[in-house]
Amino acid sequence: MSTTTLKGQPFDRPVLDSMLRRRMFYSPSFEIYGGVAGLYDYGPPGCALLNNIVNLWRKHFILEEDMLEVDCTALTPAEVLKTSGHVDKFADWMCKDPKNGDIMRADHFVEQILEARLKGDKDARGVKVEEKEADPKKKKKKVKGIEAVKLDDSVVQEYEEILARIDNYNGEELGDLITKYVMKNPETGVIPEKPVEFNLMFQASIGPSSNMPGYLRPETAQGQFLNFAKLLEFNNQQMPFASASIGKSFRNEISPRAGLIRVREFLMAEIEHYVDPEGGKKHERFEEVKDIELVLLNRHTQLAGKTDVKKVAIGQAVADGTVDNETLGYFLARIQLFLAKIGVDQSKVRFRQHMANEMAHYAADCWDAELQTSYGWIECVGCADRSAYDLTVHANKTGAPLMVRERLDIPISHEEWIIELNKKTFGPAFKKDGKTVEAAVQAIPKEKREVLAQELASNGTIVVEVEGVGNGKVEIKKDLIVAIEKRTRVQNTREYTPNVIEPSFGLGRILYALLEQNYWTRTSDDPAAETRGTAYCKKVLSFPPIVAPTKVLLVPLSNHESFKPLLKKMSHKLRVLGVSSKIDDSGASIGKRYSRNDELGTPLGITIDFQSLSDDTFTLRDRDSTKQVRADTDKIMAAIKSLVDGSKAWAEIEKELPVFEGQEVEAVAIR
Amino acid sequence: MSTTTLKGQPFDRPVLDSMLRRRMFYSPSFEIYGGVAGLYDYGPPGCALLNNIVNLWRKHFILEEDMLEVDCTALTPAEVLKTSGHVDKFADWMCKDPKNGDIMRADHFVEQILEARLKGDKDARGVKVEEKEADPKKKKKKVKGIEAVKLDDSVVQEYEEILARIDNYNGEELGDLITKYVMKNPETGVIPEKPVEFNLMFQASIGPSSNMPGYLRPETAQGQFLNFAKLLEFNNQQMPFASASIGKSFRNEISPRAGLIRVREFLMAEIEHYVDPEGGKKHERFEEVKDIELVLLNRHTQLAGKTDVKKVAIGQAVADGTVDNETLGYFLARIQLFLAKIGVDQSKVRFRQHMANEMAHYAADCWDAELQTSYGWIECVGCADRSAYDLTVHANKTGAPLMVRERLDIPISHEEWIIELNKKTFGPAFKKDGKTVEAAVQAIPKEKREVLAQELASNGTIVVEVEGVGNGKVEIKKDLIVAIEKRTRVQNTREYTPNVIEPSFGLGRILYALLEQNYWTRTSDDPAAETRGTAYCKKVLSFPPIVAPTKVLLVPLSNHESFKPLLKKMSHKLRVLGVSSKIDDSGASIGKRYSRNDELGTPLGITIDFQSLSDDTFTLRDRDSTKQVRADTDKIMAAIKSLVDGSKAWAEIEKELPVFEGQEVEAVAIR
Repeated sequence: MSTTTLKGQPFDRPVLDSMLRRRMFYSPSFEIYGGVAGLYDYGPPGCALLNNIVNLWRKHFILEEDMLEVDCTALTPAEVLKTSGHVDKFADWMCKDPKNGDIMRADHFVEQILEARLKGDKDARGVKVEEKEADPKKKKKKVKGIEAVKLDDSVVQEYEEILARIDNYNGEELGDLITKYVMKNPETGVIPEKPVEFNLMFQASIGPSSNMPGYLRPETAQGQFLNFAKLLEFNNQQMPFASASIGKSFRNEISPRAGLIRVREFLMAEIEHYVDPEGGKKHERFEEVKDIELVLLNRHTQLAGKTDVKKVAIGQAVADGTVDNETLGYFLARIQLFLAKIGVDQSKVRFRQHMANEMAHYAADCWDAELQTSYGWIECVGCADRSAYDLTVHANKTGAPLMVRERLDIPISHEEWIIELNKKTFGPAFKKDGKTVEAAVQAIPKEKREVLAQELASNGTIVVEVEGVGNGKVEIKKDLIVAIEKRTRVQNTREYTPNVIEPSFGLGRILYALLEQNYWTRTSDDPAAETRGTAYCKKVLSFPPIVAPTKVLLVPLSNHESFKPLLKKMSHKLRVLGVSSKIDDSGASIGKRYSRNDELGTPLGITIDFQSLSDDTFTLRDRDSTKQVRADTDKIMAAIKSLVDGSKAWAEIEKELPVFEGQEVEAVAIR
Repeated sequence: MSTTTLKGQPFDRPVLDSMLRRRMFYSPSFEIYGGVAGLYDYGPPGCALLNNIVNLWRKHFILEEDMLEVDCTALTPAEVLKTSGHVDKFADWMCKDPKNGDIMRADHFVEQILEARLKGDKDARGVKVEEKEADPKKKKKKVKGIEAVKLDDSVVQEYEEILARIDNYNGEELGDLITKYVMKNPETGVIPEKPVEFNLMFQASIGPSSNMPGYLRPETAQGQFLNFAKLLEFNNQQMPFASASIGKSFRNEISPRAGLIRVREFLMAEIEHYVDPEGGKKHERFEEVKDIELVLLNRHTQLAGKTDVKKVAIGQAVADGTVDNETLGYFLARIQLFLAKIGVDQSKVRFRQHMANEMAHYAADCWDAELQTSYGWIECVGCADRSAYDLTVHANKTGAPLMVRERLDIPISHEEWIIELNKKTFGPAFKKDGKTVEAAVQAIPKEKREVLAQELASNGTIVVEVEGVGNGKVEIKKDLIVAIEKRTRVQNTREYTPNVIEPSFGLGRILYALLEQNYWTRTSDDPAAETRGTAYCKKVLSFPPIVAPTKVLLVPLSNHESFKPLLKKMSHKLRVLGVSSKIDDSGASIGKRYSRNDELGTPLGITIDFQSLSDDTFTLRDRDSTKQVRADTDKIMAAIKSLVDGSKAWAEIEKELPVFEGQEVEAVAIR
């Protein structure tokens, strides 16, 4: 399936890429030193776009729901990430080509070889092969020289079964497959070395001596979990609540390609919503979102080898069990609203549920918001129910009380059989065996104690099995026992470890998808353009004003001194309105200056011309339609304000203010 | 000199520290794992305060002056930092105690020992010793058991000379001093090992094979420099301009103490302003700031061993040469304005000039904005003229054109003697020596060429010295030479490497200084407080509203259902105004709830009481005076808006709206 632009035109990635670099949205870091794979710098428009997305995220999630924002360090001691499981499990299998030293991900290598052989088989059988959709998660090199070799039917079946299970093999198994099927690296003709585990975390030893091994965090979540007890206290012990973090994380990808989609240093925004696991994880505000429709790709469909999606109201999806609980559903809907707000194409979003073997073993349910780009469907937001896993492992390791203690409105009474020993006589009676015998007594199951009570009453003594003391049977006389009886215990508080619902955003990926999805080209409708030889096909980034790097372009007819006071006035008025603007007073034609800013996604433009000098009116231009209106300062400012805050659309402005025509073509700069 | 609170009370750091931790402004990272020195997490109020400072910084610098913001990676290949000088020079000397393994900074160790001996000498002579002001840059441990030993006068002089030159010694010299003066570690009684260099950068190897050594950046500057050519292009080749970055940097401090003042991971905001070195580095907007007065501590005063400051208008300081140039002066003034805006105590700011031996060798001038705290005068903003150093070294290393090419309005003509060789005949005539001879000819100094021209005209041949060819003298006949003559060369463009003025902000240090400087305590004026036994001494953080973590506290009289609709209404109205608010509907008394929020620095509070239910009026409370006014919703909202945007002060609001009295004391929660 091929990708299209915002207006449904065929999408040409190299053309967009080159424009994005030229206009400094982003470019490879350290480019003058040859660059480093997987590292990118954001230039001014990329930075502004990213900042706007971050600000909107903070408003939409943190401020709207009173989340507790924290900012934790990226440097992390090894012990923390050992406990969380990252030191042992946050790894990929890689294998090395002994001839040219190339390093490859083992699973990707096996996949690549088998798919190539299957393709060769189909070619040999004369079957037309449809190109599979590119999947950036499987950074494949094109396999050189596929030979059309027919395989036995049984071999084809074997290969297909291996591919279906590819995510399930460990390193040793992948190594066995490589040996068994004699998979040679097409680049060198030799079999790669055995797969070894490669942990994706960057190591960073902390302090001058090497006694504090550490890593750069691969996610912001752990820092939030470690602060749980303090955050609960800060929140006046009230549950549920959420913490949130916006910050850089680091993953040492084996060989990143695919631009901003797979990078080694990236900005994340993560929410950890803490919820009582009892009572079905309801959400107070679920009612507000229950009618929002999401495009869902559930796990059953995927297990059946299909990718059919269903558009379902989230209330329905939770009710029928497709989505595990209200809290998870609430956040899926809120994610959808956020993506819509920043300008994600609603026909290019889907929520894909993780299959059982894809999820961490502790996760209860997990959905990814995937955005469609020319790299395929890209996971941009993960939304997982992490259960009580993280808080539990850190609490067990450190002894810190990462739990909630709640006063019970109605205390709970428990009746239970207890054995109370006589502390004064018991110790001396058994001397060095005292503690062992006592432990054995207290370990007697509750249901057996009633019988013991009767035994004590009738015999004046009981016999208890105590391994390692005497012959393993110990007699305890009446004088050593205060009582064996049924007592009532009243429980006034309840303790529990909260479960965590985690919406986790890869902001760089979202930004990239936004660039692709808002991009289109327009044919110049100016008949003179062709004869002038100017660009016929103009590139436009139609960001919603709320995220556009700059909101208004100020264009004086020329850089003549007489326009300067008006430029200054308009730019000041916009600053007071809180609307970002840029001036382009270069010598280029007005049309060219507007085109340059269409490439930057600037939604509005004000032209200052000779008429402005005499009657204080200005034209206001809409990026998407290139239509213009003309009015005085106050009306223009009011229109801008309403367009930027989203309260009006351009169509309304066109009805309210007099339309102006022809400016872009005729007004060539005079200098 | 002891530090004072905002209201001039003696400052008690442990009391503030404990409140800041309790209220989660910040706390040691990984605290449940025992913590890591030099790493801190910001909790919700700290995070909000930091975000507000960052936003204001972006507005004050980037937006106000159309700077080009870039966001570069922290991971940096070693080659880049080798070129910039960081791999070789960004280091401290450390020495190890062989007995207990303690690691100390060598210069601090020598200082500590000699100062202790000098103090002992003074004690022995009966001289009262004044405590030197604490300097957090010299993380000294208190030296145990200073003995009162009188030293020879000559020894005292030697020690004092060493201390005066302490920043000038290298590791070997420090080692020699330790040996020569038998400096034993007071903790163990043994002499530490020889100093070794410890580079302060965190190493982080990039990629799966170890072929890409790297570091975490120690400053954001280098990423900006590497993008210079692209930024200049983005700026339509116009000079001067500035780039700016806000991001984390990392320094592996040897043994950080002193809280947020010395940390291993910190947020920086850096500006690189590129300016033509010719013409005195003027600044277009210097006129706007020239009358702003700064408190200056210049280098001459310091070299004379004094710390007397002068309050001088920046225009004057540039005119008399105290500050090197207008651009540097402009930024010093802008830094001062920024610090004032965020609430830095104006009596606790000074600008200290670096002494010659303190600056990097390439720097032309450097001033630090220092803020006074209980740790002494802390460098919070550095403002250096880095000259053309960085752009030059990166351009030399990579060949990238990190320079400006300017079209000259008036072309410059040069007359010069040239030697034009006959390319057709010259090569064949000298065969393998051709290039060597040609190079020797073109290397002939311009002033000697006129003589050669005469020689050629009269003899029909010239003799040139060419080392390594024949006997070192080569004859060149007329037929190999087209001409030796004076020609006019016209230069239409000028190329130069810009100089860089760099204001560099340590945002964590500024935040800490802001906390200390805005902190004070007030005695409760409520006569009932003493009898009730409630806190007599209340802590307040008087942030300006613009940076306060939360602007408005909403306090219902109790958490009774009847107040909920009004709470919701007020909180919605504030959100529409863009003013952040929090609700405290806990069971604590109104007074207690206000006190809690005074600790968080919330400038305003709205009480919702029974009267509000009947007449829709509310009280508005001022954090600093605890005074209250009462009015209807619209008037309260208008007052809040003007207080938060800084257009009105509380005193004005008190004149406009009816004052309300008594609420805090009488209104104890009813539940």
